[in-house]
Amino acid sequence: MRRGTNLPWVGDYNQAVVLDGIRRSPGTSRTEIARSSGLTLQTVSNIVRRLLERDLVREGGGRSSLPRAVGKPRAALSVRPGVAVAAGLQFDRDHVVAVLLDLTGDVLGTARADRPGDGASGSLRVGAGLVHDLVAAGVARGDLDASAVRGVGVAVPGPLDFHGPVRSSAINLPGWHGVAVADLLGRFLDLPVLVENDATACAVGELWRSPRGPRSFLHVHVGVGIGGGIVLRDEVLRGESGNAGEIGHVVVDPSGPACTCGSVGCLEACAAPAAVVRGYVRLVGAGAARSAGLRLAEASVLADHDRLEALAAGGDAAAAAVLRRAADDLAGVVLGVVNVVDVGEVVLGGPGLRCGGERVRAVLQDRVRAAMARDLHGVTVRLSGSGEHAGAVGAASAVLHEALTSTWSTARSPLRAAVISPVAPVH
Amino acid sequence: MRRGTNLPWVGDYNQAVVLDGIRRSPGTSRTEIARSSGLTLQTVSNIVRRLLERDLVREGGGRSSLPRAVGKPRAALSVRPGVAVAAGLQFDRDHVVAVLLDLTGDVLGTARADRPGDGASGSLRVGAGLVHDLVAAGVARGDLDASAVRGVGVAVPGPLDFHGPVRSSAINLPGWHGVAVADLLGRFLDLPVLVENDATACAVGELWRSPRGPRSFLHVHVGVGIGGGIVLRDEVLRGESGNAGEIGHVVVDPSGPACTCGSVGCLEACAAPAAVVRGYVRLVGAGAARSAGLRLAEASVLADHDRLEALAAGGDAAAAAVLRRAADDLAGVVLGVVNVVDVGEVVLGGPGLRCGGERVRAVLQDRVRAAMARDLHGVTVRLSGSGEHAGAVGAASAVLHEALTSTWSTARSPLRAAVISPVAPVH
Repeated sequence: MRRGTNLPWVGDYNQAVVLDGIRRSPGTSRTEIARSSGLTLQTVSNIVRRLLERDLVREGGGRSSLPRAVGKPRAALSVRPGVAVAAGLQFDRDHVVAVLLDLTGDVLGTARADRPGDGASGSLRVGAGLVHDLVAAGVARGDLDASAVRGVGVAVPGPLDFHGPVRSSAINLPGWHGVAVADLLGRFLDLPVLVENDATACAVGELWRSPRGPRSFLHVHVGVGIGGGIVLRDEVLRGESGNAGEIGHVVVDPSGPACTCGSVGCLEACAAPAAVVRGYVRLVGAGAARSAGLRLAEASVLADHDRLEALAAGGDAAAAAVLRRAADDLAGVVLGVVNVVDVGEVVLGGPGLRCGGERVRAVLQDRVRAAMARDLHGVTVRLSGSGEHAGAVGAASAVLHEALTSTWSTARSPLRAAVISPVAPVH
Repeated sequence: MRRGTNLPWVGDYNQAVVLDGIRRSPGTSRTEIARSSGLTLQTVSNIVRRLLERDLVREGGGRSSLPRAVGKPRAALSVRPGVAVAAGLQFDRDHVVAVLLDLTGDVLGTARADRPGDGASGSLRVGAGLVHDLVAAGVARGDLDASAVRGVGVAVPGPLDFHGPVRSSAINLPGWHGVAVADLLGRFLDLPVLVENDATACAVGELWRSPRGPRSFLHVHVGVGIGGGIVLRDEVLRGESGNAGEIGHVVVDPSGPACTCGSVGCLEACAAPAAVVRGYVRLVGAGAARSAGLRLAEASVLADHDRLEALAAGGDAAAAAVLRRAADDLAGVVLGVVNVVDVGEVVLGGPGLRCGGERVRAVLQDRVRAAMARDLHGVTVRLSGSGEHAGAVGAASAVLHEALTSTWSTARSPLRAAVISPVAPVH
């Protein structure tokens, strides 16, 4: 049955409501927070006093880029960006990206390693090294206190097994199946670890940087595979086993190719970069494809996909046709998901869209006008602003989100205590 | 920003947790509830005392069909079924069904009217009459107190507009577009009204009759259209505008027929009963279809669909082919939704499956084995036990669910107060 609740939980929840309100509206006041949250001014003031004592919040000015509230400068509240920092790691088939993110969502540093090593253990060791070096560099520059680094988020392609210690079941990441990611990373890095599906991590990153909430959106991530993350009114949709959002495995062509997932004609099998490249080769032949600049190797699939965008822009009808077909397939699935989960916003990101993003966005924007709820709310399709570090930034955001935001699902997170209170610094 | 919370809310939430625990486990004890809910025995005892005083709960035995807890007969708690009753109305293109449902989910009475009248107003007047007559009959039999009827739930095909008073935007229900359903029904019936998408209502009905939770499932409703309702850990997935679950508008054939929704090749356009009948006519011709017993009128579509099941069972290859194709289309979409929202259970219901339900179930069960989370949890497909009144039972369940269960979304419902405290009886 459901769990009951109690007074300490309420206090913790309200504190998270206030902190999230200050973070998302720098320069806000106690009065404004009381009005928006429905809490009494007395309750808000008590909570703000505790946050000030713990140095999570500061008084007397917003971020310098924002106008200070007229007439009550001392009431203006904002979070202290550097007091809580999270690291993020994104693992993909051939590289790992690391970032450091402060409490306001600013990226303090990034690093990248290509072909990081054999399987999960070698890759995680390299990733841990990147985080260690980023922290050391920040400390050496004097703009980071090592003890401020509260946890590390890890983004890996799904699915993940959340029963017990989180294990990767990634079908696109050889050598990771069954790996207990946090346990293994913990051997190299003395920080609390949160493991997240990469597409979900991107969605959390998008949510975390939203100035105001609540927001609801589908985040589409096109990399080697196609994944999705769904946020409904600021809550991440996780589903029964934590793997919601797998839009790559909606069937788009029942007579299409077999998919790695075991089904037939899935979006990923029909419209992921590798499928687009295969489609082009079918149309023009491998020789002509190579002459056109494609390398046709497994490791070059994203580069070949970029090359097809350039060819299409230059008038290559075959390249234009296969890219258009993939965008149409994606649009059909996105329209379906917009209907099934009823969101008003779609965000596109990932390396598979780094060249053709705007073209794909326009196709989707046109198709989603047919959404069932079209008379009730518009559906906006836009490109993510996160760039190529989206997964790593998202994973770091997930640590801060899990620890600091006020949602039903995060309110009992064991990570919350670890992140809000300082933990052991990086060695 | 998010709303804060306070002590009265916590008290209300915990009361709902305890009441829901007793309802779903008749014969349970205070100790068992304390253990399952995490509340202290003292808190549970205080709440149970208030529920006993308000006659919502009784002590000293479960439902007669269940064994009493050995050694502590007086501790056994159960809800009083008749103390809170909800009415449910389901409107479809050519009929309205009414039910009365008690607190334990038992159906106290059902009624039906075919071709109830012109548009929404006439239909709602007829529906109100059915509810009035059911209540009067129950009172006359001596097994219903009119004041126990706490509200009426109305199930209509989606989409619905939940901004302000709930308005129907149904595309399959002529004459209902823009109708403020509760306001109009309120002219005929003096009860609080809750309006729900019919497929979502079916999902709530399924949830409400679950002996234990939490449950996560997709409820597929095949009527004239194809709809869906999604429940995740006992929470109804509503989405941005309250219209989540529209599985009928996932694209299954990009080169398929235009759909009433404005898109092309939607599941509903390809696999709803009318599409199956059209497919059969394309294969054999209208003359042969009529000779085979089909009437080919708009009002006969469900009967014609049933007839095709009988023909297929009798060896008609064309009938078998169109039905198989529709089941395959549905299976592809269901697999996609299982992946996107990550549920472990699919429930099938509705008049479009009253003859071929088991056949369709077997096709779906076979396909969902390819679910992304297949290594993490099984996916079970089963037929709903609700029968032809599923929508009306679901709508009545939605009233009780909204008022009595302990979820984040229902905890602030204005209906809760109206339903838990007696309101004006039916006149």
